Amino acid sequence: MDIILFLIFFAATCGAAATGMLFPTGEWYKSLNKPDWVPPDWVFPVAWTSIYLLISFAGARVAGLEGSAYAMAFWGMQIAFNALWTPVFFGLRALRKSLPVMACLWVAVLGCTITHFQLDLWAGLAFVPYLIWVTVAAALNLSVARLNPDQEPLEISSI
Amino acid sequence: MDIILFLIFFAATCGAAATGMLFPTGEWYKSLNKPDWVPPDWVFPVAWTSIYLLISFAGARVAGLEGSAYAMAFWGMQIAFNALWTPVFFGLRALRKSLPVMACLWVAVLGCTITHFQLDLWAGLAFVPYLIWVTVAAALNLSVARLNPDQEPLEISSI
Repeated sequence: MDIILFLIFFAATCGAAATGMLFPTGEWYKSLNKPDWVPPDWVFPVAWTSIYLLISFAGARVAGLEGSAYAMAFWGMQIAFNALWTPVFFGLRALRKSLPVMACLWVAVLGCTITHFQLDLWAGLAFVPYLIWVTVAAALNLSVARLNPDQEPLEISSI
Repeated sequence: MDIILFLIFFAATCGAAATGMLFPTGEWYKSLNKPDWVPPDWVFPVAWTSIYLLISFAGARVAGLEGSAYAMAFWGMQIAFNALWTPVFFGLRALRKSLPVMACLWVAVLGCTITHFQLDLWAGLAFVPYLIWVTVAAALNLSVARLNPDQEPLEISSI
């Protein structure tokens, strides 16, 4: 595996990861009604760090292979929607507007998983935890949106 | 050019473009001190729409070519930092924290421009307006940060 290539993909994931630090969860998130099965807080950074390392590895393994065009297009799509979700949910506190973002992320991750498997077994496997995790995250987003129907988004532009 | 491939790259740019709609400029941006040479407001959506179409075209032209690994890694990196910048600047109103984000975006776009040119003339040319525009945007971000030294970021987590 080309380490420089890995580092460029990893730099991309750092852009997405930065949203977690810039838009922290805080008191507002604690105050929300959550389903019984909500994962404990410490799981989130552990899961995301592992996923970001795994998908950087997957990207670096697959990028140089013939026929990787779709895999790379989906890779770009997933990181864009990944970077978008946190500011929409934790920045705007838009529990419902974040749902179509999550849907696009889920489609992109499914596309990545399939296309990476077609090219390389290890790269495909590296996307499986991500697909599982965005499925959990999507269910959590939907559940939180339903359990907090009166929660209005923050109108940042009117502050 | 593969139209499906174009549409996946374009979907990625829509993720980044959505930040412009979700974090609109509003009264706060109007109230900032800006340099004399600030482009008029209408230029921004026109520039970004053109750039997003051009880089989707560039990605779709290059993704299937042999040796496109670095081009694709940089493509992923630019869209992540592109999606990150708007929520940091217009969401958090962090005039200074947005500068390293812009620096990473600039490096990624430079990387894209060079690597796309190495593979395909038209794809390389398609990245030139983007490189020029992020250079202008970086200068504008720096200038606005300097002209508004007392502007504090929004503490969303304490609202």
